[in-house]
Amino acid sequence: MRFISQTSSDGVTEQLFTLGEIPGVLWTPEDAHGPRPLILIGHGGGQHKKAPGIAARARRFAAEGGFAVAAIDVPNHGERPTDEAFDRIAAEYRARAAAGQDTAELDTALYTLVVGQAVAEWQAVLTAAQQLENIGGGPAGYWGVSMGCAFGLPLVAAEPRVGAAVLGLQGAPVLAEAAAQITVPVQFLVQWDDELMPRAQSLALFDAIGSADKTLHAHPGKHGELPRFEADDSLRFFARHLG
Amino acid sequence: MRFISQTSSDGVTEQLFTLGEIPGVLWTPEDAHGPRPLILIGHGGGQHKKAPGIAARARRFAAEGGFAVAAIDVPNHGERPTDEAFDRIAAEYRARAAAGQDTAELDTALYTLVVGQAVAEWQAVLTAAQQLENIGGGPAGYWGVSMGCAFGLPLVAAEPRVGAAVLGLQGAPVLAEAAAQITVPVQFLVQWDDELMPRAQSLALFDAIGSADKTLHAHPGKHGELPRFEADDSLRFFARHLG
Repeated sequence: MRFISQTSSDGVTEQLFTLGEIPGVLWTPEDAHGPRPLILIGHGGGQHKKAPGIAARARRFAAEGGFAVAAIDVPNHGERPTDEAFDRIAAEYRARAAAGQDTAELDTALYTLVVGQAVAEWQAVLTAAQQLENIGGGPAGYWGVSMGCAFGLPLVAAEPRVGAAVLGLQGAPVLAEAAAQITVPVQFLVQWDDELMPRAQSLALFDAIGSADKTLHAHPGKHGELPRFEADDSLRFFARHLG
Repeated sequence: MRFISQTSSDGVTEQLFTLGEIPGVLWTPEDAHGPRPLILIGHGGGQHKKAPGIAARARRFAAEGGFAVAAIDVPNHGERPTDEAFDRIAAEYRARAAAGQDTAELDTALYTLVVGQAVAEWQAVLTAAQQLENIGGGPAGYWGVSMGCAFGLPLVAAEPRVGAAVLGLQGAPVLAEAAAQITVPVQFLVQWDDELMPRAQSLALFDAIGSADKTLHAHPGKHGELPRFEADDSLRFFARHLG
């Protein structure tokens, strides 16, 4: 993990880093010393590691929860090179979703193309971050919705170091198998009027999650309209399970 | 409002009262002076104003939130005389529900029999309680699930003094009309494996609520298995909207 820059504001230190070919960012409470839980935040499709919603959430988790928070550009996003096959399927996905058509086949294609790499990269970031003096080897959490949930479900299923996850805005049937393997506490977010994810599919994916301790939070509104107070719930959920 | 007894423990004062023929209980923070929001708690079918889940929740709302909390025995419950027609339908309801049979007709019959009285009684209690020096005429909240939701939906729809409500464990189609008239913030609780309320009906009732600010919280488990941490969410919800 090679640190490139460091800035601090409002009590939070932000460090850009690279780990091999992965560009990332780490937020910690300013002057943090000693171990603390790490929360991984997975961005949505077309976003990147410092998208406004990602950075604002990360800063709250660090400032108010005392957590360390890491985000990376997942393959084909942010500073990463684009893969032609991925871009082609993603463009077709957006067109079909916007037209209200079924995207199950494209979901599966996209997922199959990058899920292995995405999970391996998150695991490498987790391993590297846990070497840091102000993080250490304690429990980790994962927050990711939409595409961040598509990669988060198999990560949380595969990775025993992740002890709690906030997921959602997702209902692709291809994810049910990973969901069924999850046993840690999950908070699953659904937008009741999501124009990209059919409500019944989202509820079915929540249903598929294997955890005994799982909670569905649904709010009116479209895919991009998660209410601001939901960030409070995420913070308390992580404090309860990782604190 | 005639007070019958007063005891205090763990920082909370509990006063039994009658208002006409209505037996009730009022919880306030010990030595509370000046105005504070009042939360009305409606108990479930077969329960009463001091059922363990009701009293424990009320004490938390008073001790941790600084709220005043009132509960009453609704008609045909607790110390109230029983009505033969109500008892007959309620017994048939329990038998049909236990057998997994449709209860829509009986829901409607029970509801029609007592809803007008229940709403009028809650309104009278609210009016009387707001005369008290340590409550005053500020905003009120309502918490009620199962039968407490069946009476709560029409109360919240009819009563402009109620500014926020936690409802749920309920899906009777007869309630959709009252639900549609509600405009205040609502948190609606669903038990994902509710053996008394079909999941699709519960989700349809949430869908019917007219409020722009409404949130569904669903958890695995049966009708009686609301997780303990949900009380934290109720407390924060009321603090956010009535505080």
